[in-house]
This record gives sequence, C-alpha cells and structure tokens, in this order.
Amino acid sequence: MKEQIKTYLNRYVSFSDNEINEIYGRLSSQTLQKKKFLLHEGQICNHKYFIIKGLVRLFYIDFNGNEKVIQFAIENWWVTNVESFIKETPSSISIQALEETIILSIKKNELEELYQSIPKLERLFRLITENMLIAIQKRNEFYMKASSKDRYYSLINNIPNLAQRVPQYMIASYLDVTPEYLSEIRKNS
Amino acid sequence: MKEQIKTYLNRYVSFSDNEINEIYGRLSSQTLQKKKFLLHEGQICNHKYFIIKGLVRLFYIDFNGNEKVIQFAIENWWVTNVESFIKETPSSISIQALEETIILSIKKNELEELYQSIPKLERLFRLITENMLIAIQKRNEFYMKASSKDRYYSLINNIPNLAQRVPQYMIASYLDVTPEYLSEIRKNS
Repeated sequence: MKEQIKTYLNRYVSFSDNEINEIYGRLSSQTLQKKKFLLHEGQICNHKYFIIKGLVRLFYIDFNGNEKVIQFAIENWWVTNVESFIKETPSSISIQALEETIILSIKKNELEELYQSIPKLERLFRLITENMLIAIQKRNEFYMKASSKDRYYSLINNIPNLAQRVPQYMIASYLDVTPEYLSEIRKNS
Repeated sequence: MKEQIKTYLNRYVSFSDNEINEIYGRLSSQTLQKKKFLLHEGQICNHKYFIIKGLVRLFYIDFNGNEKVIQFAIENWWVTNVESFIKETPSSISIQALEETIILSIKKNELEELYQSIPKLERLFRLITENMLIAIQKRNEFYMKASSKDRYYSLINNIPNLAQRVPQYMIASYLDVTPEYLSEIRKNS
C-alpha cells in the first residue's frame, strides 16, 4: 500500500523517503465491502479518498427518486466531494463501493498541516486538481459532441472491465440513456 | 490594474509588495476590441488570462457548424483552455471578447518560473483550480437537475447585466435551448 502511494506521488513531484513517511503517517486505511458507503449525500465530506484497489461510484438521487451516476472511479484515483470538502457544506452526492474497495484517506485538517510542513504538496495537489479539471471539461465537451454509442465506448475503454464490474443500469444512468437503449448499443457492437 | 490584481491575489494568500511586484512584472496587458479573439480553436493556449474589465465567451463549433457557448467570464476571472495550456495540445475551444475587454496574461514558462521563485503561488493556483472545479461540478449538477427557466435565472444572477451585455442567441446556446424558447422564458418572467 505504501509503495503504491509512493509511486503515485512521485509521478508528480519527487518526495524524499522522510517526506513519504510523514505523508503516509497521516493516511488511514480501510476496506469497504461491496455496496458500503464512503460518503452519504447530506454528510460533510472531511476527507480526500485515494483508491488503492476496487471501484466506487459517485451518484445522487434526482427529483424522481432515480439514482444518477456522475462518476466511476478506480485504482489510483482521488475521490471526494470537492465543494463539501472545501466549504464544509453538506455533500450533494454519495460515494459507494461497487466492489470490495481498499481506501487510503486523509482528513482535511491533517492535509492542511501537511501543506505547511511539506509545501511541495501544494504543487502536487495543484497538478492533481488541474488534471481533474481537464478530465471533467473533456467529459463535458465529449458528452455534448458525441453519440451515446461513442460515449459508451469511451467509458469502457477508460476503465478496464467496467462492463463486467458494474451493473448495466448504473452504466445507463451514467450515460444518461435507458437500460434498453444501452442494451441495443451493446448488441450492435 | 496593479491594485486590482493585488487585491485579487491577496484574497487567497498574502503576498509581500516585493512578491506582488515580481508577479506583476511577469504579466502583460492588452485591450481587446469587441468580437476580437483571445484564442482560436486549434491554437495552443500558452497563457492564462485574467480579466481586468469586460466580458468574454468560451465556445466551440459543433458538427452542424453551430456555435456552442460553454462559458461566459467577467472581471476577476481567469480563463484559459486548461488542457491545451498543460498538455500543449491544440485548444478545443475559442475565447472571444463580447465587449471591449482588458486582459492581463501570463505565459506558461513565466508562470513556471514564478512557481519556483514564489512557491506560495502553488497554493494560490491550487485554491483557484479547486474553485474552478467546484464551479464546473456545481454547474454540471445544477444543469442535470434544474429546468431551463431556473438555469436562465441562475446565469443572469451570476453575471451582472448579462442579458443586456450578450446577444440572446448566445445565452440560448449556453443554456442549450432554442432562442424562441429563451424568449418564452423571458416573457413569462
């Protein structure tokens, strides 16, 4: 677990072993069983979560009581509700494990202390946040431009074995198509 | 101009006068006439732009040759194409002034040099990028949940006098409704 986060962190900025130890010492690990929640809509999200292994979804419940999936996330991704984390407001989304999932998490105040003692972390999280921004902007643009079929293939190419790992109705929810239409797309592929 | 950017920067992190001078020395200013482009789709976006005064739109041309507005931006906002800026790839969007607009801009390599000499800037841009991420996520969620009418009112409440500053067809493009439907919304308000 420590090796994995070390490799990940050093992709962006290079940290000494002492710094890695200091960062790692602030992280907590947990294993979530399938279907367990990391965060419930309405809670304040005090943590950033790093996925060591597994798969989670971010979703909310819409007006009609339907689940609307906004993101799937896998190994080596950070997940959080950024707004709730920063402004300490109730989260507008839930985060749920769709497989047994191993998570490292860092509390907001611990991260703030780390920023003070290892300022290079500011750079790391600036770069990570920029990448998240790029990802969300690309997805938005792609979603406005592409057909449902192209969106489906982009999604399954992005996350290995997604179609085997996640129920079809959740993929349909993410793509904003009906499960029937998704099944048409898959049949014609 | 210097006072405005100083006030803005000190909102996030406090900088000494020397640091402000060093940052300001790296910025270039320009005035764009109405309809002039800051960035054309296909160009590499080497700058981050800070709007001192005026209003710009970010847009692209879709399959059918229609303009699709993705953002309006005003005073004290940074605009750029983040992906193009970071990865040095051709921009997928254009940025155009919709009023006479005064811009401060910083080149990518100058910003990198500033990060080295004033590491607090990493914090500043981490915080700014987090706020951009919050804004885009909120907009996405709101757009999935809200009616066209609510989206219209949210937009005009966010940007002072937008309805007077921008042609209606651009607002319709941003809201993803027809100009006729936008005119219905406005009539019934």
